[in-house]
Amino acid sequence: MKPDSQSNRLRALELGIQALIILSLVAFSLETLPNLSPTMSRTLYFFEVFTVIIFSIEYFTRLWLSPHRLKFVFSFLGIIDLLAILPFFLSIGLDLRSIRVVRLFRLTRLLKLARYNKAIRRFHQAILIAREEILLFVSAATILLYLGAVGIYYCESEAQPEEFGSVFHCLWWSVVTLTTVGYGDVYPVTVGGRIFTAALLFVGLGIVAVPTGIISSALVRARELEGQQPTPENQEGETFVSEVARSEETSSS
Amino acid sequence: MKPDSQSNRLRALELGIQALIILSLVAFSLETLPNLSPTMSRTLYFFEVFTVIIFSIEYFTRLWLSPHRLKFVFSFLGIIDLLAILPFFLSIGLDLRSIRVVRLFRLTRLLKLARYNKAIRRFHQAILIAREEILLFVSAATILLYLGAVGIYYCESEAQPEEFGSVFHCLWWSVVTLTTVGYGDVYPVTVGGRIFTAALLFVGLGIVAVPTGIISSALVRARELEGQQPTPENQEGETFVSEVARSEETSSS
Amino acid sequence: MKPDSQSNRLRALELGIQALIILSLVAFSLETLPNLSPTMSRTLYFFEVFTVIIFSIEYFTRLWLSPHRLKFVFSFLGIIDLLAILPFFLSIGLDLRSIRVVRLFRLTRLLKLARYNKAIRRFHQAILIAREEILLFVSAATILLYLGAVGIYYCESEAQPEEFGSVFHCLWWSVVTLTTVGYGDVYPVTVGGRIFTAALLFVGLGIVAVPTGIISSALVRARELEGQQPTPENQEGETFVSEVARSEETSSS
Amino acid sequence: MKPDSQSNRLRALELGIQALIILSLVAFSLETLPNLSPTMSRTLYFFEVFTVIIFSIEYFTRLWLSPHRLKFVFSFLGIIDLLAILPFFLSIGLDLRSIRVVRLFRLTRLLKLARYNKAIRRFHQAILIAREEILLFVSAATILLYLGAVGIYYCESEAQPEEFGSVFHCLWWSVVTLTTVGYGDVYPVTVGGRIFTAALLFVGLGIVAVPTGIISSALVRARELEGQQPTPENQEGETFVSEVARSEETSSS
Repeated sequence: MKPDSQSNRLRALELGIQALIILSLVAFSLETLPNLSPTMSRTLYFFEVFTVIIFSIEYFTRLWLSPHRLKFVFSFLGIIDLLAILPFFLSIGLDLRSIRVVRLFRLTRLLKLARYNKAIRRFHQAILIAREEILLFVSAATILLYLGAVGIYYCESEAQPEEFGSVFHCLWWSVVTLTTVGYGDVYPVTVGGRIFTAALLFVGLGIVAVPTGIISSALVRARELEGQQPTPENQEGETFVSEVARSEETSSS
Repeated sequence: MKPDSQSNRLRALELGIQALIILSLVAFSLETLPNLSPTMSRTLYFFEVFTVIIFSIEYFTRLWLSPHRLKFVFSFLGIIDLLAILPFFLSIGLDLRSIRVVRLFRLTRLLKLARYNKAIRRFHQAILIAREEILLFVSAATILLYLGAVGIYYCESEAQPEEFGSVFHCLWWSVVTLTTVGYGDVYPVTVGGRIFTAALLFVGLGIVAVPTGIISSALVRARELEGQQPTPENQEGETFVSEVARSEETSSS
Repeated sequence: MKPDSQSNRLRALELGIQALIILSLVAFSLETLPNLSPTMSRTLYFFEVFTVIIFSIEYFTRLWLSPHRLKFVFSFLGIIDLLAILPFFLSIGLDLRSIRVVRLFRLTRLLKLARYNKAIRRFHQAILIAREEILLFVSAATILLYLGAVGIYYCESEAQPEEFGSVFHCLWWSVVTLTTVGYGDVYPVTVGGRIFTAALLFVGLGIVAVPTGIISSALVRARELEGQQPTPENQEGETFVSEVARSEETSSS
Repeated sequence: MKPDSQSNRLRALELGIQALIILSLVAFSLETLPNLSPTMSRTLYFFEVFTVIIFSIEYFTRLWLSPHRLKFVFSFLGIIDLLAILPFFLSIGLDLRSIRVVRLFRLTRLLKLARYNKAIRRFHQAILIAREEILLFVSAATILLYLGAVGIYYCESEAQPEEFGSVFHCLWWSVVTLTTVGYGDVYPVTVGGRIFTAALLFVGLGIVAVPTGIISSALVRARELEGQQPTPENQEGETFVSEVARSEETSSS
């Protein structure tokens, strides 16, 4: 067997597993639909069983091929792979009523995508580079959110005791306003509250504007660092393929 | 005839066709107005016939002047030109009821503007440069949208079964919130849902902030690349004019 | 008289006129308040007469001191100064009913600030630098707004014939959504409309993100250009002071 | 006693005081909750007394250890420390009714965080660097807000005399719209008002986009300046620790 055709077959397998992860998330979403027909419900259950079987086979194959099995079990990717199948086996023994919460753990399969996805890793690196600035922004934003909540509490709590009843109620307004979402469920009606809101937004937009610059410059730096490494593209592209290839080399030698 | 006056005349023709494209889109919009008077309706129909005749003449003139006719028919710009006139001729043979959908195809005329518009081409180049980063952002945003929808589903589906009935209902909330549009048709009311929204927006604004840096830096690079080419300005400005000029040179020689 | 103390006095005069412009705008705003008491109304009228007298004196002093009077009358700043006082004199001869529209012309006094304000001039230069990119952005945004309106028209016009009755109605929705203002007066309710909105916002946020990069980079370049000029700070600071000084030099020589 | 273990103990003390500041703000927020049980109310009061005692001890220790005591009392950080405890002692002598306003002064404790927080100081430096540009942006935004308010007043005041009754009412609309918050409590309904809003947002988004570039570039420059200083990291990290250490050196020598 030529190494090229083997590599292609493994790459196809990888893409197939990624597709299965996404399909399994779609199935998870479909299950939340109200008024599901019993047929649909059963189909979704069988699909769930099918995905768990495939993921279990994948997990044990990886475990088998790994040169250091114990190390694989406790590695980051190994734990993710286990988390993607474990909830299903645990839910069999449990009462059906608590299954709703267990279903949520199936979302950990999304993390499996991180195994294959080079893009997510670059984001991870960008976050590491801009760690300090992000912390800076988060603390500044938190202080502003709090000050905004306290300010509007003193302006509006008497006019609208229902919506602005405490600083905690006002924090919700503060979040909705400073992120410029503005649902319209709570808004100031007094003259003082409106002037305060205008002043807060003036300062707030400046602070909310900061992460843009931080993250984009960090992404640029992350790309530059990639370019400086000796074999950037190849090393990242290899996940399952190279892992298997390496383990085979080890076993054959 | 001097080449300068000929060039000016062709340039005027080009501008005239661009104006006609825009007028044809205005006419298309006017047709959607409810309670149109029969006179208005007839005027718009006659204008439609007029534009199709002009575009047909343009298409066949281009085809005639082209040195490689078959190549022109299957070129990107040739297909766009055909799409701008074809729907009209097709709709003659069809039943009147389905005409509403066919009208939509007339929007392809907007693509004709791309033929003349240097600006759109530079955007296209910027997108090619930042292809990888855009993909990265789109996947990150998609994952965040999905996680947001699942999270709010678990927080709000019991308090508001109508608005947050399934993960798909929640995806709409997720889109409206993370883009900070915030219509106010769906918003969380439980304490858990509000805390989750605040956390999601904190992360989300960072991710939504990324495309700014990506696209603007790509645009800057696209400009630099233009500046490095030998004759940047002239080559892009010439579309119909130079095409005709070249074809005439070919035919006269 | 020493030149320094004269310069200081003229600078104080300049600041006084700027303050008067702002006060005159405040008075203009106060006049729009409903239920104004007759006393307040009369006070505002007398203040208006006072400002017009001061601005008239300023205009004719400038005209007198100018070495080339006719040139001053037709200069940009000369026309602005005239526009700030002319509406008052014109409104005397007119019927009282049309006075409301004439009042609007008093806003041209805001332009008088541009005469003194170095900041506005730098913005002006930044716009000149980024002229091409701004045009590019405006055309791309316009096309997206239009496509958004047409798309939502086909999705929502049947479900909500009142709000999405024609492409022109939908353009309002398109503006409110793509700028992420999201008042909540019009929003899609059908599944198709919501999926279309999500897709539109994905593309739209990218395009709306562009001006940030464009304008900020243009501002940076505008600052650099300032730094390269021989005497940047002084030349811009001199407006009325140096003008008067120069005209005096001319007359005394 | 080794200098290292002493330094570690002082650092732990510092962190403890920071935690106490945050806890004291949480207690302040809890007090605003309506329907507080008497037990809770009393617990919060005792916690308040406790924090004031700790902060008083901290203040007088600092004062005692300071080589120049009068200088410390009138320094920025000395005044902040005093402001954090003074309101409590003042409120003892006062009538209980005015206590609500006095409570607000307790927020000055948030400023105490600035003493320990390096991040806030870097932000401060970034603001100093971009001082001129921020002023430029604020003035441009103010003018646009005002023009937006006047414009919508002429478009909407007749159709909606309640919401758009005067230029001051319209300023609220202007703030909510140009910051893209869009609560939905006031929005234009006339055709003219909607076209004006669209035009205003086109211009406005450009201006709102500016602070992003300004602040992020200023932050980058602030980091560069830090890197150029001889001992950047150490000097900033030392606050209470080094202060105490220095004062001890002074007293021991």
